[in-house]
Amino acid sequence: MSSNTVFLNNTFINTAQASILITDLSIQRGYGIFDFFKTVNGKPIFLDDHIERFYNSAKKMHLHVSQTPAELKSIIAKLMHTNNLPESGIKITLTGGYSEDAYTLPASQNLIITQQPLTIHHTLQSEGLTLVTYCYQRQLSEMKTLDYSMAIWLQPFIKENNANDVLYQYNGFIKETPRANFFIVTREGEVVTAKNNVLGGIIRKNIINLDGSGLKITERDFTLEELYNASEAFITSTTKNILPVYKIDGKKIGHGKAGKITEQLSTLLFEKMR
Amino acid sequence: MSSNTVFLNNTFINTAQASILITDLSIQRGYGIFDFFKTVNGKPIFLDDHIERFYNSAKKMHLHVSQTPAELKSIIAKLMHTNNLPESGIKITLTGGYSEDAYTLPASQNLIITQQPLTIHHTLQSEGLTLVTYCYQRQLSEMKTLDYSMAIWLQPFIKENNANDVLYQYNGFIKETPRANFFIVTREGEVVTAKNNVLGGIIRKNIINLDGSGLKITERDFTLEELYNASEAFITSTTKNILPVYKIDGKKIGHGKAGKITEQLSTLLFEKMR
Repeated sequence: MSSNTVFLNNTFINTAQASILITDLSIQRGYGIFDFFKTVNGKPIFLDDHIERFYNSAKKMHLHVSQTPAELKSIIAKLMHTNNLPESGIKITLTGGYSEDAYTLPASQNLIITQQPLTIHHTLQSEGLTLVTYCYQRQLSEMKTLDYSMAIWLQPFIKENNANDVLYQYNGFIKETPRANFFIVTREGEVVTAKNNVLGGIIRKNIINLDGSGLKITERDFTLEELYNASEAFITSTTKNILPVYKIDGKKIGHGKAGKITEQLSTLLFEKMR
Repeated sequence: MSSNTVFLNNTFINTAQASILITDLSIQRGYGIFDFFKTVNGKPIFLDDHIERFYNSAKKMHLHVSQTPAELKSIIAKLMHTNNLPESGIKITLTGGYSEDAYTLPASQNLIITQQPLTIHHTLQSEGLTLVTYCYQRQLSEMKTLDYSMAIWLQPFIKENNANDVLYQYNGFIKETPRANFFIVTREGEVVTAKNNVLGGIIRKNIINLDGSGLKITERDFTLEELYNASEAFITSTTKNILPVYKIDGKKIGHGKAGKITEQLSTLLFEKMR
C-alpha cells in the first residue's frame, strides 16, 4: 500500500502507523465486514449504494457502526481532501472488535477507512479474462464479509490453470468470482446473472436497473453447460466496471472476444456513472 | 485478555502493546491459521501433535513458518517461563502477512504466540452441554484456519435456543461443533465420530488411538437420526477434554446424563495426559 492517510476509529493517521491490537476478532477469527467504492475525478461513484450495503452487512453480521451514514460520509470527504487522490479506491472496514476471550463478539467494533490510488478504465477494456471454475459456495453470501479464505487459498490453483481468476460454481450452478459478479448473454440475447446466494454487487444492481437498453436482463440460476454455450460473458465489479470473459475452463465463449451486448452495456454503464 | 507477555514475530512484548498493521491479510481477508494447546502443571499437553498440525495447516494454506519446530518449542518454553502460568492455553497464530494490494498472499507471515490462564477440569465435568444443530459445512475443513465467521455469526442463534453451543450437520450428517469434535455412543456400544470434512482434533485423535479400552471406536459418517437415538454423546477439545452432551435440539440423549462409556473414556484420557 502506498503511504497516505487512513481513518482508524476516531483518528486520521498515516498508513504506516495504522495497526490494531491482536485481540481483534478479525485477527483471531476472521470476523468483520467491509465495503469498497471508487472515486473518479474526485467524485465517489454510487456512494449511497455502497454506504447502504455497508450498514446492511454490519447489521446482518451483528456489528455496530458508531457513526451515522452522514457522519461516515463526512469522514470520507475529509479523507479524500487530505489524500488528494482523484482516482482512487476507498475501503471501509468494520472488524469484529477487541474480544476479551478472543471469541465472544464485543459491543464495539474497529472502523478502518483506507484510500489507495486506482486507475479506472473509462472504456471497455479490450483484453478479456480467462477464468477457471471451482466448486464452492460462499458462506454468508449476501453480506460483504472479510472472508476470502477460499479466494486466497486458490491463488496457486489459478496460476497453475493459467487463468486470471476463479469462477465459483456450486453443484453445477454458476455463482460469482471472488470479487465480481458474473453475467452471460445467451444465444437468444438474454442477459443473465445468478440470482441466489451471491453478493449483491453495486455494478450488478446498476446493470440490472439500466433504463433504455432494450435488453432482457434476468436474475436466475444458470448452469455451467449454459455458460459454455453462451455467446458472451462478462464480469462486473467496482474496479473493473464491465470486463469481457473470453475463455472459461479452456473453452472459448462465443467468438472469444468482447460481444456486442457487452459493449452496449458497458457504454450505458459509463453514461450512468458520468 | 489478561495482560501478560506475547511473542510477536521476533519479539516478546506485553499483550497491551501487541498489534499488527492493518495491511495484514487476517484483517483484510480473514486469512491465516493457528493452533492451540494447554499446559497443565507447567507442562504442555500433546505438544508434538499440536506442533505437527500447526505446520501441516500452514503448509496446506500456502503459509511459511520461519522457525523450525525446535525453534518454535524453544520460544514457547521461554514464553512459559516469562509468564509463569502453570495452567494455561497457548495459541500459536500465523496470519496471512502484510499484503501490498490487500489480496495477494505475501512471502512472509506474522507469527503471534499468546498465553492465557486456563482452568482445566481434571475429572469429567458433571454438567453436560445442551447443543442446537445447524446446517453448515466448514470450508477448508481439514486445516485449522482463522475462519470462524459462521460460529461468531451464530452466537445470537445459540442464545435464542438456550444452548451452550451449536453442532454443525450438513445434509443430515453430523460434523463437529465450532471448537470441538463430536462423538456418540450407539445403543450397541459403538463409539462413533464423523470421518469426513471435519478438523482432526488432537483429543479426538488420542481417543481414537486409546489402547486397552476394549471399545469399538469408529470414524464414519453418521446421521442426525442416529444421533437422536444414541445412548451417549460427548464432545472432545483441548479446553474441555471430554464433556458429555445431555440435550440436542431439545431432545434428551440417552438418560440425559454422563454415560458409562463417556466416563470410561474420560478416565483413560486423563491417564494418558498424566
